[in-house]
Amino acid sequence: MSSSLSAVRGAFFDFVDDPWKHIGNEQASARFVKDGLLVTENGLIKEFGAFDEVSKRYANVPVTHIKNRLIMPGFIDGHIHFPQTRVLGAYGAQLLDWLQESIFPEELKFRDRDYARGAAKQFFDALLAGGTTTCQAFTTSSPVSTEEFFAEAERRNMRTIAGLTGIDRFAPDDFLIGPDEFYRESKRLIEQYHRKGRHLYAITPRFAVGCTSELMNRCAQLKREHNDCWINTHISENPSEVRTAKIHFPDCNDYTEVHEKHGLLGPKFTAGHGIWLSNDEFRRFSKAGAAISFCPLSNLFLGSGLFRLGRALDPEHRVRISLGCDMGGGNAFSLIRVMEEAYKVGMCNNTMLDGSVNPREQDSAEAERNKLSAYRAFYLATLGGAESLYIDDLLGNFNVGKEADFVALDWNGGQAAMAWHQSLVTEGTPATMEEAAKLLFGILAIGDDRNVDETWIAGKRAYSKSGGAVA
Amino acid sequence: MSSSLSAVRGAFFDFVDDPWKHIGNEQASARFVKDGLLVTENGLIKEFGAFDEVSKRYANVPVTHIKNRLIMPGFIDGHIHFPQTRVLGAYGAQLLDWLQESIFPEELKFRDRDYARGAAKQFFDALLAGGTTTCQAFTTSSPVSTEEFFAEAERRNMRTIAGLTGIDRFAPDDFLIGPDEFYRESKRLIEQYHRKGRHLYAITPRFAVGCTSELMNRCAQLKREHNDCWINTHISENPSEVRTAKIHFPDCNDYTEVHEKHGLLGPKFTAGHGIWLSNDEFRRFSKAGAAISFCPLSNLFLGSGLFRLGRALDPEHRVRISLGCDMGGGNAFSLIRVMEEAYKVGMCNNTMLDGSVNPREQDSAEAERNKLSAYRAFYLATLGGAESLYIDDLLGNFNVGKEADFVALDWNGGQAAMAWHQSLVTEGTPATMEEAAKLLFGILAIGDDRNVDETWIAGKRAYSKSGGAVA
Repeated sequence: MSSSLSAVRGAFFDFVDDPWKHIGNEQASARFVKDGLLVTENGLIKEFGAFDEVSKRYANVPVTHIKNRLIMPGFIDGHIHFPQTRVLGAYGAQLLDWLQESIFPEELKFRDRDYARGAAKQFFDALLAGGTTTCQAFTTSSPVSTEEFFAEAERRNMRTIAGLTGIDRFAPDDFLIGPDEFYRESKRLIEQYHRKGRHLYAITPRFAVGCTSELMNRCAQLKREHNDCWINTHISENPSEVRTAKIHFPDCNDYTEVHEKHGLLGPKFTAGHGIWLSNDEFRRFSKAGAAISFCPLSNLFLGSGLFRLGRALDPEHRVRISLGCDMGGGNAFSLIRVMEEAYKVGMCNNTMLDGSVNPREQDSAEAERNKLSAYRAFYLATLGGAESLYIDDLLGNFNVGKEADFVALDWNGGQAAMAWHQSLVTEGTPATMEEAAKLLFGILAIGDDRNVDETWIAGKRAYSKSGGAVA
Repeated sequence: MSSSLSAVRGAFFDFVDDPWKHIGNEQASARFVKDGLLVTENGLIKEFGAFDEVSKRYANVPVTHIKNRLIMPGFIDGHIHFPQTRVLGAYGAQLLDWLQESIFPEELKFRDRDYARGAAKQFFDALLAGGTTTCQAFTTSSPVSTEEFFAEAERRNMRTIAGLTGIDRFAPDDFLIGPDEFYRESKRLIEQYHRKGRHLYAITPRFAVGCTSELMNRCAQLKREHNDCWINTHISENPSEVRTAKIHFPDCNDYTEVHEKHGLLGPKFTAGHGIWLSNDEFRRFSKAGAAISFCPLSNLFLGSGLFRLGRALDPEHRVRISLGCDMGGGNAFSLIRVMEEAYKVGMCNNTMLDGSVNPREQDSAEAERNKLSAYRAFYLATLGGAESLYIDDLLGNFNVGKEADFVALDWNGGQAAMAWHQSLVTEGTPATMEEAAKLLFGILAIGDDRNVDETWIAGKRAYSKSGGAVA
């Protein structure tokens, strides 16, 4: 046996399929190994299965036994803003005012390399404490912030997607970046970072209100020249934003057409929010293979509105969905908190969809899809997010060959009321998948980052609740 | 000096008026003593003011110096369900189904005295960990649960309002209580508990869907015979519930009229939720001196809807408002989490009120009242709640003669991202009221029960975060 092998033993829970394809039998989408062994080599999963079986073949490999925890793939955050780390949860305004008052002034500080470097430490510490092992992040219009983001990700050996964030109007002058400079700097950064180590690069036009057609065209050019890159942006977050976008692009019939006309909508394209998208826009997203990142923490905190998950997942125009905390619009880093709010958004939508307020709005099929079971929620936070971001070849579950990023969840962590609640399910380690799923719903409903006991990156412990970040 | 005197030194923040009466100058509603001394005697506030002044007169009194914390009056929860402690955050259903599937089966267990006693310990531990020192609670239809509730409150010397919770339809048979038995048992419990120690009694018809007219009449009779008692119930939580209530009371034009016709609406009457109340109903609540408990955690978790706080606070028909966690419909005990969700509900309402979706809904005055600053939120959680419940003669701020229940808030507690966020305000103890308010908003936005470092009851430490409940 090579000495680079190591293994983790414990109770494992991951997904092999999409639970929305198994309505009434969601267990068929999941995999639960009550006493499992995950063998890793150089950060990749070498073998995974029942301890009794697998351990025979790895007799001399050092094993870390994680007891009384559920081990899941690391959480994947499809939409987060690195330079808003310090101003998350800022008081008082909807999107457009909030950007001007609270966000742009803070983001401006990220031209300073020392500030950006310190912030990157804070950012990744907070991510790991929330159990997030991969994120797709916005940076700022200064290359410095993108460089420091990737530098810190590299120190932690984390798989991330990010890119210089272009905005050439609707911000203070010294925050803007012209289309030519944006193109030049993006190209330089792509060559420096894309597919180097675990870095993936996203061409990042911030949002249509802040991007001229010239900037959008430059993004399309970059995508043509570097087709393997990702595209990351925002869409239809707030009604006033939607109307402003329409004024800026009068020849587009809707917000989605802005991205279509500029040749951006397609695979590896993610737009955050999508609250106010029409069915027809969902259909075009679906057909193009483009994705939406659902950010309920932010959508509630900024009052943007209630995303219609059940509508986006209509089998007739099913859209790829990731979860995003959208910190700082979102007021926490924890994807557990995101799942909680996603559940609530679904419930609020369903009160309208049951027809009791307006019979014309009744839609029990959409309502069913809105209901966020533990299976559905944790799928979105892991394999579903990976599929949405087109990185499920790399990670998202415990399949052999994938990268070994995972979390150990303590189902009794969290508020004082939690342990007694969970004792309704079991006093010991869950015996069945259904018991495990009930504990996971308890985490979703009344837990938070306190339920993340350990976070592992590429087969190594990178965070433990008692000791903080290890890196 | 008598030896029963003791004192606490620290930075104090409380309210002397309603911040909604001081739009643009909310500081006028608050009191901030950067270095204060609170002297207590037998659980009551003997003197309060600047340390330099007050300490001169109490030279030999033992002082506990609480450093690097904001000391506020204990939080007041206007609406919570003691027997739902274990099933908070239950999966999957709106109000009426949720009651049948998850809640009544658990509440039935509270006929068993041992179970109820154990639950009471869990309940008060969780309350104190959240910084809640006073609550108005529902129990069950079994007197045992009310007795054990008050017994545990007494052991902790806590000011509470509760009462036998009447329901004579819409529940399993063995959970119902007939109007005569309800009357008899309520009367017995009133005589046993009301105004004994810190107990206050609330005549408690659960909600109109579960209460026949006969039961409501018995409540009115109890109120006539014990006019000093409180009344606690629910109203207009969910659209289906509102319609069901209408079917049960066909001679009432709206839900509020059910309570009016039965002679219940008046001072010391609180109804939880009130999401779907009309302006006219708010007017009648206002005129009667009746109160609503705003429960946003629950309203989102059960998808009940978005309470229109700014409308309820319209100066033309201003309604008394407390905050309630409504655990178990609410998925946490923490009033900090309640404030967070209340803020979000206001923001979501405001996106509709800005006219960008529907110009007919534009109302900037209502939108302004929806905005939950730190002043407004913490007022509702302390003095405002006390005024709403008509207990502001007893507690709610640090006025001399009031009961000395308070919390010590650690503005750096909470998720990993918190401390760096708060360092934007100050690296040390806040120097001004405005700095303190900014730290409090940080707690509201990105904090939770972890920000409650200590909870004191009647001048004695009853909980500390590091050590749990002291009692």
